[in-house]
Amino acid sequence: MALQVYNSMTRTKEVFTPIHAPYVGMYVCGPTVSGESHLGHARPYVTFDIVYRYLQELGYKVRYVRNITDAGHFEEEGKEAEDKVGGKAKLERLEPMELVQKYTNLFHDAMDALGNLRPSIEPTATGHIPEQIAMIQDMIAKGLAYESNGSVYFEVRRYAETEKYGQLSGRVLEEMIAGSRELDGQQEKRDPADFALWKKAPAEHIMRWNSPWGEGFPGWHIECSAMATKYLGKHFDIHGGGMDLQFPHHESEIAQSTVCNGCAPVKYWMHNNMITVNGKKMGKSYNNTITLRELFSGAHALLEKAYSPMTVRFLILQTHYRSTLDFSNEALQSAEKGLARLMSAANIMKTFVKGDATKIGTSATDVQIQKLIAECTQFMDDDFNTAMVLANLFEMASIAFVVKNLQLPTGEASEGALALMANTFERFVYGIFGLQESVQTSGSKMDDVMQVLMNIRKEARAKKDFATSDLIRNQLTEKGISIKDEKDGTVSWTINE
Amino acid sequence: MALQVYNSMTRTKEVFTPIHAPYVGMYVCGPTVSGESHLGHARPYVTFDIVYRYLQELGYKVRYVRNITDAGHFEEEGKEAEDKVGGKAKLERLEPMELVQKYTNLFHDAMDALGNLRPSIEPTATGHIPEQIAMIQDMIAKGLAYESNGSVYFEVRRYAETEKYGQLSGRVLEEMIAGSRELDGQQEKRDPADFALWKKAPAEHIMRWNSPWGEGFPGWHIECSAMATKYLGKHFDIHGGGMDLQFPHHESEIAQSTVCNGCAPVKYWMHNNMITVNGKKMGKSYNNTITLRELFSGAHALLEKAYSPMTVRFLILQTHYRSTLDFSNEALQSAEKGLARLMSAANIMKTFVKGDATKIGTSATDVQIQKLIAECTQFMDDDFNTAMVLANLFEMASIAFVVKNLQLPTGEASEGALALMANTFERFVYGIFGLQESVQTSGSKMDDVMQVLMNIRKEARAKKDFATSDLIRNQLTEKGISIKDEKDGTVSWTINE
Repeated sequence: MALQVYNSMTRTKEVFTPIHAPYVGMYVCGPTVSGESHLGHARPYVTFDIVYRYLQELGYKVRYVRNITDAGHFEEEGKEAEDKVGGKAKLERLEPMELVQKYTNLFHDAMDALGNLRPSIEPTATGHIPEQIAMIQDMIAKGLAYESNGSVYFEVRRYAETEKYGQLSGRVLEEMIAGSRELDGQQEKRDPADFALWKKAPAEHIMRWNSPWGEGFPGWHIECSAMATKYLGKHFDIHGGGMDLQFPHHESEIAQSTVCNGCAPVKYWMHNNMITVNGKKMGKSYNNTITLRELFSGAHALLEKAYSPMTVRFLILQTHYRSTLDFSNEALQSAEKGLARLMSAANIMKTFVKGDATKIGTSATDVQIQKLIAECTQFMDDDFNTAMVLANLFEMASIAFVVKNLQLPTGEASEGALALMANTFERFVYGIFGLQESVQTSGSKMDDVMQVLMNIRKEARAKKDFATSDLIRNQLTEKGISIKDEKDGTVSWTINE
Repeated sequence: MALQVYNSMTRTKEVFTPIHAPYVGMYVCGPTVSGESHLGHARPYVTFDIVYRYLQELGYKVRYVRNITDAGHFEEEGKEAEDKVGGKAKLERLEPMELVQKYTNLFHDAMDALGNLRPSIEPTATGHIPEQIAMIQDMIAKGLAYESNGSVYFEVRRYAETEKYGQLSGRVLEEMIAGSRELDGQQEKRDPADFALWKKAPAEHIMRWNSPWGEGFPGWHIECSAMATKYLGKHFDIHGGGMDLQFPHHESEIAQSTVCNGCAPVKYWMHNNMITVNGKKMGKSYNNTITLRELFSGAHALLEKAYSPMTVRFLILQTHYRSTLDFSNEALQSAEKGLARLMSAANIMKTFVKGDATKIGTSATDVQIQKLIAECTQFMDDDFNTAMVLANLFEMASIAFVVKNLQLPTGEASEGALALMANTFERFVYGIFGLQESVQTSGSKMDDVMQVLMNIRKEARAKKDFATSDLIRNQLTEKGISIKDEKDGTVSWTINE
């Protein structure tokens, strides 16, 4: 069976056939770094990290481009008035790029913590102003964009005369006008459906660039057309993002790229579904926007405790990416337990891996193991069904526990079947799913183990077994750890280096 | 005493007076990310991290800008020929920005590991093409630059007629011509001293942008003028970098900015001195270029072992930044020991901090402590003399060890003096010097301690002391750690989570 991908454009699962195999080009809409990353950022980037990992597992050479949106309205709330006072030295004024840097760093830290591989290229909107201007000039030259009062707009109805507009989101033009976010600049547009390619910068706007239409900044959609074309070409394989981006962002992107490049830009459009928090849409009005830092530290009124990034990753993988996903304490705590069980099984599996994989029997367990293994690939090939794969990994985990506890008749699980199972398990858990043992664990465990050791030493001394207590001290010294008996009877320890 | 900074331009120490106190603008030349970060990158960024930290300690609001040079000749060696074949799809061709991303990530990882705070803004050369083009146009309009065959050059002799050129590096024009790196394009220049502002892109050059002079890419020096002006203003406080950048890079930067902005750009020029490896200049011809990854992992023929990033940081701080610094196994191992001693003292100091700082006596030790504390600030104020501060911190450490071992007469070191000392010690070690306990240590130490515990268990079993061996197993189980006796006589252990 070959990989099948659900294409949001055709609304069907299609066999994945790259345009220039073995190369695959994938563009995913990155974050807008005008604020801190929140729960809503975890899902799309874990989802497309899995796509990235699995495509590489299948042998493709993937160029994964994920942008940073750092142009537009980037000013800290409340700070605007005081900072925009003219006449101040540059250094005393707010600098939007400082905020961009701060939120980009936080985003990167969160992505690393979640175990997402870094994209091949992470281009910024501000880093591609000339490319965006060039595309806008091209659209004006082709008669599909017009300048109005220093801003430039895309003429949607004109485009819709010859091309399909709204196919991806399944909307008709009139609906789209009603759903448009752009409230300002309406009087400058020829038609309410038109969207901005370039915005004239008001006097107080700090972020601004020279352009053929005066000082301004790019519209929201043009950056993705410019950067995808620059790094992946006019026609590339996969474009990903959250479902909420289908309109107006992706529709606009398609229109822009089609005009400039003479062809539809994307072969497979992929969209992850939305998240909810305790069943409600996340949003300011609900007071339920949880940042990733809050989630990882537990510092939010809605959280009963801190949840590790790996717990969050695991929870995301438990639901197929095209279904909605609800974040709740219950779901997170259940994911935490599930992850712990999986990791516990992973440690047992390590002892199986060395087995001779050719020695497979015909017992019911051996047959079951082979079925479970084959299905993992089938599930992934079926539009990246991580939830189904996880179910199989849990069945494998159960087998591992049973084997470890010697609860199976001899020969029921053959050396070869166990080795194959362990290999598959590790490949999926660590490689394709990118799950890891929580790093923090070993820090506190070190304290735990030292405490056990000190208990044993105390026992020995109580029994006047000074040979043992000295042995403990000497061996620790050898390892570079000093222990000291405190006056209150406790023992403190320090790592010497 | 006020902070004094050695100004490379005036060759004297000057009292530091920010242009717009309490704001301070600092620009430091960042890495060229066409290759992996090496030893030579550790020193300047640790040096200016200390400057950044100390200025903040003094209460200044610092905007620290450190650029990423990602424009120019960015192609993987050996790959050029095959990848530049025309007619290939974009995705099949080499993309320089993929290399840029890879080496930028590695640079960031190394900087984080070295404990350097992240700069306020980290702008890229490719992200400021319009700003660079605008400055070049300005220089042409002012008659100090000219276009020649699609490239643009700065007319050095013309500039030198009215402005001082060579003041920073102390060179006269004729020397500078001889020392110039630019071998190509000589026939296009009006004078050999002229340097490139914009280079015409040859047909095979992948990185290229439109400009008023055709497709090309910016010269090496213009990006820093453009980005420093954009984020810090026409005249800012500190410009830092390695001494090797004085000419031609910083001289050119001064000339460009002076022409465009009508004033010298920088109040205080700061330059760190060079490093050597085993007494030799680092370079390809000596086969002694050690990347930071190699240094941290020990994977280089010249390294006897791995050195932690904190060891490297400590070694850098042990030498004043304006002296040369030699990296050798001896020096690194001695730094490792020094750092361990300091961290050991830091742990003892933690018990002193709580003391009542008003209870200071007049004993010799109390007087000595107060002198050591006062000097720390004096040394830092004397052009960031971290080496001298470290000497004082070691004297404080000695006092801490003596106090801990009860080797002082009662009252000789008062509660208050020890509290003050501990506060100063922690402020410098962790805050101003940014030193940390090595994180990796505890990982391998965990293995060490488990091994000690397993040795004790083995001893117990050999003596048929099963009470002890059971106690060990049970206590570990309680802590969530399973142990398993392997067939080969070893014991494996797993954390159950």
